[in-house]
Amino acid sequence: MRVSFIGLGLMGYPMAAHLARRFPTVVWNRTPEKAVRHARETGSRAAETLAQAVDADVILTCLPTSLEVQAVAERVLADLKPGAIWLDCTSGDPQGARDLAALLATRGVTLLDTPVSGGTSGAQSGALTVMVGGAVATLELARPVLEAFAARIVHVGTLGAGMAVKAANNTLAAVNILALAEVLCGLEREGIRSVAALDVINHSSGRSNVSENLFPERVLTRAFPLTFSLGLLAKDVSIAARFLRMQGQAAPLVSLTDQLFILARQELGPDVDHVAAVQLIERWAGVEIGGKGED
Amino acid sequence: MRVSFIGLGLMGYPMAAHLARRFPTVVWNRTPEKAVRHARETGSRAAETLAQAVDADVILTCLPTSLEVQAVAERVLADLKPGAIWLDCTSGDPQGARDLAALLATRGVTLLDTPVSGGTSGAQSGALTVMVGGAVATLELARPVLEAFAARIVHVGTLGAGMAVKAANNTLAAVNILALAEVLCGLEREGIRSVAALDVINHSSGRSNVSENLFPERVLTRAFPLTFSLGLLAKDVSIAARFLRMQGQAAPLVSLTDQLFILARQELGPDVDHVAAVQLIERWAGVEIGGKGED
Amino acid sequence: MRVSFIGLGLMGYPMAAHLARRFPTVVWNRTPEKAVRHARETGSRAAETLAQAVDADVILTCLPTSLEVQAVAERVLADLKPGAIWLDCTSGDPQGARDLAALLATRGVTLLDTPVSGGTSGAQSGALTVMVGGAVATLELARPVLEAFAARIVHVGTLGAGMAVKAANNTLAAVNILALAEVLCGLEREGIRSVAALDVINHSSGRSNVSENLFPERVLTRAFPLTFSLGLLAKDVSIAARFLRMQGQAAPLVSLTDQLFILARQELGPDVDHVAAVQLIERWAGVEIGGKGED
Amino acid sequence: MRVSFIGLGLMGYPMAAHLARRFPTVVWNRTPEKAVRHARETGSRAAETLAQAVDADVILTCLPTSLEVQAVAERVLADLKPGAIWLDCTSGDPQGARDLAALLATRGVTLLDTPVSGGTSGAQSGALTVMVGGAVATLELARPVLEAFAARIVHVGTLGAGMAVKAANNTLAAVNILALAEVLCGLEREGIRSVAALDVINHSSGRSNVSENLFPERVLTRAFPLTFSLGLLAKDVSIAARFLRMQGQAAPLVSLTDQLFILARQELGPDVDHVAAVQLIERWAGVEIGGKGED
Repeated sequence: MRVSFIGLGLMGYPMAAHLARRFPTVVWNRTPEKAVRHARETGSRAAETLAQAVDADVILTCLPTSLEVQAVAERVLADLKPGAIWLDCTSGDPQGARDLAALLATRGVTLLDTPVSGGTSGAQSGALTVMVGGAVATLELARPVLEAFAARIVHVGTLGAGMAVKAANNTLAAVNILALAEVLCGLEREGIRSVAALDVINHSSGRSNVSENLFPERVLTRAFPLTFSLGLLAKDVSIAARFLRMQGQAAPLVSLTDQLFILARQELGPDVDHVAAVQLIERWAGVEIGGKGED
Repeated sequence: MRVSFIGLGLMGYPMAAHLARRFPTVVWNRTPEKAVRHARETGSRAAETLAQAVDADVILTCLPTSLEVQAVAERVLADLKPGAIWLDCTSGDPQGARDLAALLATRGVTLLDTPVSGGTSGAQSGALTVMVGGAVATLELARPVLEAFAARIVHVGTLGAGMAVKAANNTLAAVNILALAEVLCGLEREGIRSVAALDVINHSSGRSNVSENLFPERVLTRAFPLTFSLGLLAKDVSIAARFLRMQGQAAPLVSLTDQLFILARQELGPDVDHVAAVQLIERWAGVEIGGKGED
Repeated sequence: MRVSFIGLGLMGYPMAAHLARRFPTVVWNRTPEKAVRHARETGSRAAETLAQAVDADVILTCLPTSLEVQAVAERVLADLKPGAIWLDCTSGDPQGARDLAALLATRGVTLLDTPVSGGTSGAQSGALTVMVGGAVATLELARPVLEAFAARIVHVGTLGAGMAVKAANNTLAAVNILALAEVLCGLEREGIRSVAALDVINHSSGRSNVSENLFPERVLTRAFPLTFSLGLLAKDVSIAARFLRMQGQAAPLVSLTDQLFILARQELGPDVDHVAAVQLIERWAGVEIGGKGED
Repeated sequence: MRVSFIGLGLMGYPMAAHLARRFPTVVWNRTPEKAVRHARETGSRAAETLAQAVDADVILTCLPTSLEVQAVAERVLADLKPGAIWLDCTSGDPQGARDLAALLATRGVTLLDTPVSGGTSGAQSGALTVMVGGAVATLELARPVLEAFAARIVHVGTLGAGMAVKAANNTLAAVNILALAEVLCGLEREGIRSVAALDVINHSSGRSNVSENLFPERVLTRAFPLTFSLGLLAKDVSIAARFLRMQGQAAPLVSLTDQLFILARQELGPDVDHVAAVQLIERWAGVEIGGKGED
């Protein structure tokens, strides 16, 4: 089985490296230097054109948004090989997945939406979780490919369902980032150190991945290393908010979180790490979480 | 050291039982039958009057709100023994703790606010987390008492700080209950089963104590066993919201969660389990999380 | 100049009657009986088919949403007369207007979006306000037609601008309906009669069309006569919220109002009068604005 | 009947001038120069001490918040004349009025809460609206005094009711300021001029005192003259929000408006005119309402 991988970003690069260990793997990236380096480092082959990049049994994409995936698909449409499977690992939107599937179907190519979670560390260790939307039979054909970088593959529903679950998950992380910042800033203003408050919370009912991992590693340290950009998280929240809105479902907390991430993105820029969204709340509160004097 | 324990509710009963194993322990409860039973089952002694109940070196209270603690303190004020320590394990409000401390100080009694987390299971196993506000020196005197039921004792600040951290923690649980309900309802409406979505989320960045424990055990099962009432959680969220508001800090997510818990309490009543707040979102969405067909 | 009017609802019926007094006017309605009655009562002519209905120099539509207008346009596309002007008086969405304009342009027909305000009473008296989006030159050609039912014609911008302004206006009415209900319910709970509170507000800085006209006439009287449905107002708020969201602009009050109108529509149904949205707040508050004992 | 007036601010100064035309009037101000000037300009008499200032049959206060009124009352308590009536024209909080009444009652002085609306222009022309809380019989005694500066006197309920209605009214103005800013910024971003949009809105259902008067005079002109400070309006909104919260009533729009005014106050400072709150929304949107090119 020949596979190709399009989009060698922070996630895609190590995912494609895992593939290259198991399959003949062609890679493509918008800036070709990265593809050349990938080929050199991992044994993949750098495609010289997008047309070469889609000459495979299984094509994987991992791009910023559904728009970029759609654009790639339109460019390569004539080059697609009927019977191929396209796995879109992008954190995209459900409707985008359905639109893409319709386009690819015109060429006999079957799409699954297969966004992943686990972050850059999960991508490097090959222990990602994949949430899959689309036909189960197609998933069974594609499973060996996904297993190259996944510890867990969960079929969640029809086309677009993977995207919907991914947006939902990221929105929960976003809610926790802001809500935890709100309460910790309030405690700091009363002289209660966040390191002590987090110690309690992380042994109590309010704990979350955000409180257990992200805040100790990124906020208390004031390090905010970039592994996943604020702009991309804001996009994911907006996908979830729109998904809920289009169903006519009231979802006031998700809706407000979407509004707050518009502001966070604007005040802090899209390119900082997503956890830096706490700085919006800190500015409003006039305090810093952790910071001076806290170890 | 003689201790007394006032308030044998779902939390207080097992906490006082742990105390009775280590110290001569007097117990008191508004409905005296429970105190009699406690004495029979655990070796504590049932006080016949509140005056008897405060004849101790360390007095512990575990009541629904700060108001009940204040009322008890006013009734027993003349009976208090100068030099005693009062540990208030109630999930109360920070200002209430400071007011109570001022009242007790008139009789030479020192207060620490010592709310606990860990739920009824933590209370039974004696593995609670205690968040302590007040003087460190007093905490050192009281530590052996708290160790009877606590696995973790964290000093978080001055008087009221324990209450503030406890309200903050519970508010984070409240935010997660509603936000998770919003996204899962949206997914259910698109035919995505919550059991699959939770499987993904619990291996991803959006996971929380709420998603890992409360939803699988109480929502997917539709069991909603009562361990902590919705009315009490709504009260804790209102404490956090007021705490932040009085500081003049913008905290839009906490503020909205407070509003939503007003509605949840009104629609569902204060006496159901706190996790039943998801039913507010479910009614709005017209779907059930888990439920029929999901196992 | 021959005109045609499609959609004889609460607004369209009297608007078309004004047209029939000045121009040879053809009318069409989904339920044809209404067109026949209109012809009999006003001197218009009832079209037997949609094809007949678009055989005119100026075609006006006044339908529930942009979707219905688009559907009509697709049905009659082949029958359109090049050089005709299409005035869409529907409260539609800006993107819908641009999409429709593109479709009509393929047949040489020019669109203006011309939603109206002034309610059924303004429609009956021929004193509506028209907000116009599109080419000024086209507006000058169409002005005599609009003047048949308008007291005020304001060109607000390019195609879609009329729709955007209309959605913005209705959203402000929606905000006032709910915000006024929130404060009046709170006052009622404290025994302050809404009739007295409105008397003050209507002589003070908080007054609005909603407080001066809608509440005295529809809420204090508990009459809630249907002149504009809650479902249509909810749709207008959603148009404004989406318009703002697509621009990436934070608009927290509009966003929350959109969420609340989802709930109002669900709890009260789409077919009650829009002012009945106050009943959502009343149910939450457990009181009635005005009602028994207030005159 | 001798009257005294405490607090010669933007509102109090002209109100006391109207009183001085009808009654022997003593005035007092924190900065005494203003009282001296008032005496010179209006025929009032400047009290040299607060004790002198309360030697009257009717005492009026018009101070920034209930706290200042309470502080004055505590200072002059021993000097109060039994049987006097105290009219508090401050925009205060309902509970503050009840607390003050209890304090004054210990000296045989009766309080009415009598906040006013109509702005500085209403104060100058003597055409204010007074909303009165407290005993009707006391109001009848005080009515001639209030009529000196009021065109409209409305008894709205028991003690505190005047404050509650005043806070409600100002909150509605606050909601309109922000909601109108949100929609106009969105329209500006699409090239729709606010002067045209306001022209439409002010002939349509979304109109309000804010859209008809404040925006044309203060926002389109970019003048923002200071007549009522943002800090005081933020305080009024917080009074309304707390009033509703203490009743346990869900009031999501008022609650969010309170949050937004915390931010507006912080970003813009408390001392700008209240209408400058639009600049918070403008900063978020990256546009100005009116501004260059609009006349």
